Amino acid sequence: MKEVKIGIIGFGTVGAGVAANLLQNGETIARRTGVKLTLAKIADLDITTDRGIIVPPAILTTDSAALINEVDVVVELVGGTTAAKALIIQALQAGKPCVTANKALLAEHGEEIFAAAADSKADVYYEASVAGGIPVIKALREGLVANRIKRIYGIMNGTCNYILTRMEHEGLNFETILKDAQELGYAEAEPSLDIDGFDTAHKASILAALAYGEWFGMKAIHVEGIRDISLLDIKFAGELGYRVKLLAIIKQIEHDVQIRVHPTLIAKDTMLANISEVFNGVMIDGEPVGETLFYGRGAGRDATASAVVADLVDVALNLKYHAAGRVPVFRPGPQFNALTGMDEIKSRYYLRLQVKDEAGVVAQIAAILGQQRISISSFIQREAHSEANVPLLILTHEAQEKQIKAAIADFERLPVVSGKVKLIRIEDI
Amino acid sequence: MKEVKIGIIGFGTVGAGVAANLLQNGETIARRTGVKLTLAKIADLDITTDRGIIVPPAILTTDSAALINEVDVVVELVGGTTAAKALIIQALQAGKPCVTANKALLAEHGEEIFAAAADSKADVYYEASVAGGIPVIKALREGLVANRIKRIYGIMNGTCNYILTRMEHEGLNFETILKDAQELGYAEAEPSLDIDGFDTAHKASILAALAYGEWFGMKAIHVEGIRDISLLDIKFAGELGYRVKLLAIIKQIEHDVQIRVHPTLIAKDTMLANISEVFNGVMIDGEPVGETLFYGRGAGRDATASAVVADLVDVALNLKYHAAGRVPVFRPGPQFNALTGMDEIKSRYYLRLQVKDEAGVVAQIAAILGQQRISISSFIQREAHSEANVPLLILTHEAQEKQIKAAIADFERLPVVSGKVKLIRIEDI
Repeated sequence: MKEVKIGIIGFGTVGAGVAANLLQNGETIARRTGVKLTLAKIADLDITTDRGIIVPPAILTTDSAALINEVDVVVELVGGTTAAKALIIQALQAGKPCVTANKALLAEHGEEIFAAAADSKADVYYEASVAGGIPVIKALREGLVANRIKRIYGIMNGTCNYILTRMEHEGLNFETILKDAQELGYAEAEPSLDIDGFDTAHKASILAALAYGEWFGMKAIHVEGIRDISLLDIKFAGELGYRVKLLAIIKQIEHDVQIRVHPTLIAKDTMLANISEVFNGVMIDGEPVGETLFYGRGAGRDATASAVVADLVDVALNLKYHAAGRVPVFRPGPQFNALTGMDEIKSRYYLRLQVKDEAGVVAQIAAILGQQRISISSFIQREAHSEANVPLLILTHEAQEKQIKAAIADFERLPVVSGKVKLIRIEDI
Repeated sequence: MKEVKIGIIGFGTVGAGVAANLLQNGETIARRTGVKLTLAKIADLDITTDRGIIVPPAILTTDSAALINEVDVVVELVGGTTAAKALIIQALQAGKPCVTANKALLAEHGEEIFAAAADSKADVYYEASVAGGIPVIKALREGLVANRIKRIYGIMNGTCNYILTRMEHEGLNFETILKDAQELGYAEAEPSLDIDGFDTAHKASILAALAYGEWFGMKAIHVEGIRDISLLDIKFAGELGYRVKLLAIIKQIEHDVQIRVHPTLIAKDTMLANISEVFNGVMIDGEPVGETLFYGRGAGRDATASAVVADLVDVALNLKYHAAGRVPVFRPGPQFNALTGMDEIKSRYYLRLQVKDEAGVVAQIAAILGQQRISISSFIQREAHSEANVPLLILTHEAQEKQIKAAIADFERLPVVSGKVKLIRIEDI
C-alpha cells in the first residue's frame, strides 16, 4: 500500500486534532482509500507543552524547514499570514503539496500561493479554511462542477452565530453575551476578527474565488460585523417574522458579481434562519441544481481535523496516481464581468428611526421615501408609553443602496428624528 | 486538452437533462477541470420523440451495444434492474467506466456490479442515485473519509415529503393529496415505489454500504411507507411539538448496525424537520466531525443531471490521469459486527389508541405498560364530546421494539380498546 508521510507545522489545537485523527483513524482510512497516511513529523516552536495527545517524541521538531524536506505532504496550521505564507511557498518550491486551514492567508495571498502551486505542480488543498468540518469546498469545486453559481449565502462564523442566537433566546444584550462567550471559550479575548465580520469575509473571499475564478482579496468585500446589533432590532425583526444573522452574500446578477458580509434579516421559516448556536451553513444556488445547503460545525479541533484529513487523503491519492492537479484546486479565468460596488447593489432594507411622538412625522418620513422612489412593504409606528421618542420601523421593497443612503441622510436632518437611523439589509432567500 | 467521449443510454427526462448540461456547460466545465466532455452518442429504443432539446441527429442510435464500443464513458439512465444491469456489466467488461443514477439497481445488485468493476478496473460512479443534486455520496466517501459514521438520517423521497408537508399545511388527508400530487406530476400513477418507502430504502442501502463496507441489499432493511399516516396523527404530533417525516435511519450502536425506513416523529425545531415540500436532506453524524446536513433537490431532470455530470468529470479526470479507482467508489470490508433485527432496536414511540370513555381505562393501559417495563414520557387522554371512543396518546421513553409490540398486542385484547393501535417511532435527533 502506498504510504504517504505527513508533516504538520503548528502543534496547536487543530494540529493536535489532526495528529489524533491520523493516529486513531489511520487504519480505517487506509482500508477505505488504499493509501496509508503516516504522521511523520510535527514542527512547532513549542514542543514541550502538553496537547492532550501522545505522539512519539522523535517526531517532534522545532525545525520546520527540515520537516518540509523529510515529508511528502505539509500541513500548515501556523496561522497568521507571514510565517505561514513563507512556509507554504517554501514547501511548494520544494515540490511538496500543502494542506492548510488558513482562511486569512488564502483570502489575502491566494493569488500568489496558487501561482506558486501552479509553478511547482504541487497541490494546495484548503477544505478546512471554510466552514470547518463541512465539506463545502469539495462540494463547490467538484460536486457542483457542472453548475453556474448564482448565489452563495454563508453563516460561517460560529462566534457571531452563537452570540446572535443567545441574544434572541435570552433577551440579553451584545456586550453581556460576548463577555459570557469569552468566558466559555466561544469568543476570543480579542474578538474583532470574528465579531467585526473579517473572518466571515475571508471565507467569502475563498468561496467567491472558487465560484468565479478570481482572487478578489479583501478590498472587494464590503464588511460589517454584529457589534451594533441591538436587542431591540432582534426583537422587532422577530415580531416581523425575521431573524438577524451575520451573512456572507456572494451573488452573480446578470454578468456582475457582488460580495458582502453584513448582519441580515432572513425570514424565520428558511433553513438558513434555523442555523443556530455555533453551527455554520452555506447555501449554494446553482444552475441547474437549484438550492443546496451544507450544514455542520464550522470550527473546533475535531471538525477542522476531519476536513484537513480529507484533504490529506486527496493529496495522498494524487501522489499515488501521479495526478497532482487532477482536480484544479483553483480555476482562474474570471467567469464574470465586473464587481458591483455597494452603492449600486439592490436589496430590501429594515430601517429603525427614533422619532418624536407628534403630528406630521409619518408624512415627513413618507415624503423622503417618495422623493427617493423607495417603495415600502411595511411601516410600523409603535404607541408611545413613557418615552419621548418612539421607534418607527420601515421595511422596504427592493431599492438601490445609494437611494437608501440618501434617504437616511435626509431622515437624520429632520428635527423629529433623534440620533442615527439603524439600517439592516433584508435578504429574501 | 484531454477529450472524453460520453455515451448516454436512456434518453428519458434525466438523459435529456444530462445531454443539455453537457451541451450548455461543456465549455465552462472544460475551463474549470481541464477535461472536455463530449456528448458522443445517445442510445434509446425510441429516438424520434421530442425531448425538448436539440442534439445532432447523428449521435442518436438504437444500438446500445455499439454505443458502448464507441465511447469512453457510459451513462446508464435506462432504469429498472434487468436491462440496466446487463448494460453496465457489458460496459465494465469492455473496460468502460459507468455513471448511473439507478438506485434500485445498486441496492439490489451492487455487490455484483462492484465486483465487475473491480475485475475490469473501471469506475462506477453513482452520485445521482441518492438525493439527486445533493453531492452527498461524494461528501460521505471523500469529504468525511476520516470519520467513523455513527448515524445517517435521510429524508430522501420528494413525493413522500411533498405529501406529508401538504397534509400538515392544508389539513387534507393522504388520499386527497396523493391524487392531487399525481395530477401535478409530483407522484407516479403507480406510486408504490415512493409512498411505500422502497425508493427511500434503495437509497438507504447505498448510503449504508458506503458507510459500513457491505452491500446489505433490501432484505436487511425494515421498510414502512406513509400510506397509513392519518391526518389525526399529523395533528397530534404537531401539538406535541413533532412533525412526521418518512425517515431512513442508519445507525451504528456499539458494534452493530441497523437500517430502517419508516414514518418518524422528529422535533419541529430540528433542521431535518424543516425540510419540506419535495426537498431532500441527509444528516450524517460522524466521529469526529459531529452532525452535518446536506440539503437540496432530490429529484428532477436538472438536479439529477448536475450529479451525473459531476460524476462524469471525476471519471474523465481518472481517465486523463490513468487513475481509475483513485478514490475507491465502494470500499468493502465490513466495519461493523452484526445487523440489529427490528425486535431488538430501541426507540421512543408514539402510540395512539381509540378507547372507550369510561372509568378504569387508564389504569388498564398503565398496567400493561408497567408489565412490559415501558416508561412513559407523555400520556394524553382527550375529552370526549360526541364520539363513543376517545383518542389516547402515549409517548414513551426509549424501549425495545419487542416490548412495544407485546404491549400493543395486550392493548388490542382489551375490551375498552377499539381497533388497531397506531405506532409511529420517535427519533431524538
